[in-house]
Amino acid sequence: MADAQRSGCPINLTLEALGDRWSLIVIRDIMFGNRRHFRELLRLSDEGIASNILADRLKRLSEGGFLTRTDDPAHKQKGVYTLTEKAIQLVPLLAAMGAWGVAHTPTSRPLAIRARLMADGGPALWAALMDELRDIHLRGQPTGLGVADELRRAYEAALEAESQGG
Amino acid sequence: MADAQRSGCPINLTLEALGDRWSLIVIRDIMFGNRRHFRELLRLSDEGIASNILADRLKRLSEGGFLTRTDDPAHKQKGVYTLTEKAIQLVPLLAAMGAWGVAHTPTSRPLAIRARLMADGGPALWAALMDELRDIHLRGQPTGLGVADELRRAYEAALEAESQGG
Repeated sequence: MADAQRSGCPINLTLEALGDRWSLIVIRDIMFGNRRHFRELLRLSDEGIASNILADRLKRLSEGGFLTRTDDPAHKQKGVYTLTEKAIQLVPLLAAMGAWGVAHTPTSRPLAIRARLMADGGPALWAALMDELRDIHLRGQPTGLGVADELRRAYEAALEAESQGG
Repeated sequence: MADAQRSGCPINLTLEALGDRWSLIVIRDIMFGNRRHFRELLRLSDEGIASNILADRLKRLSEGGFLTRTDDPAHKQKGVYTLTEKAIQLVPLLAAMGAWGVAHTPTSRPLAIRARLMADGGPALWAALMDELRDIHLRGQPTGLGVADELRRAYEAALEAESQGG
């Protein structure tokens, strides 16, 4: 702490490493939505992320060691984004954010269900999800019906129930 | 999700509610350092927060329902800041941030010890700490030797060991 502007506090350093909210939004979409290409991340964004902001955050996250970018074997000009171990270990933090959001903000019901499943599952579920993400992102082995899939199905079922219920 | 710019995702809404990193830094200092006055928060800041930023974030956090400001009975012109239930429930999120920071950033050793104790204690310790913070902030009853005190003593012991060890 020789420099007054730099503290060694892990909470502060985490906040500095993550940057602004868009970085976590991008990681969330890759992690839970399995959106691996620039166009998917842009087109499917619930928050309407701007193209230049997305490009900048993908660059920063890659430089910061949260993502790696590789060429898509099918389309040489398209990059595929992959989470690193460092990014995968953000699962408990994102779960805590989701749990707080469900309790204190006007969340949409289908997305609240996913966050609640994450919170109720606790550390055991987060560990299982992280293992799955390691299979997908670090080993290139998509798993079958795992935690991510269960969360996605619960979300889709809630979405359908809502659209039918009016 | 009628408005493309507003999503109902709990992670997004949490990030929006928290604002930038300074807001969480201020909450951390009130929560773990029990700094309740503007001057303490300014003078003891490890990150060297600027006076105008501190004033702005205290205002925003009060407006956002994270803090309440009351007059200090001893000094009428001095405000005392108190955490609300909503802010106290950020404990698991701050614990997750600390745990990630210890694993992936160059944290200082004494502060890493505190974050590790928080992480190792898990949900049971977080609940105990939240109860203590409720006593202090919501009921105005400072507890004796509790979790916060234990974390502080572990931190101070590590700090002393470090200064003696060179």
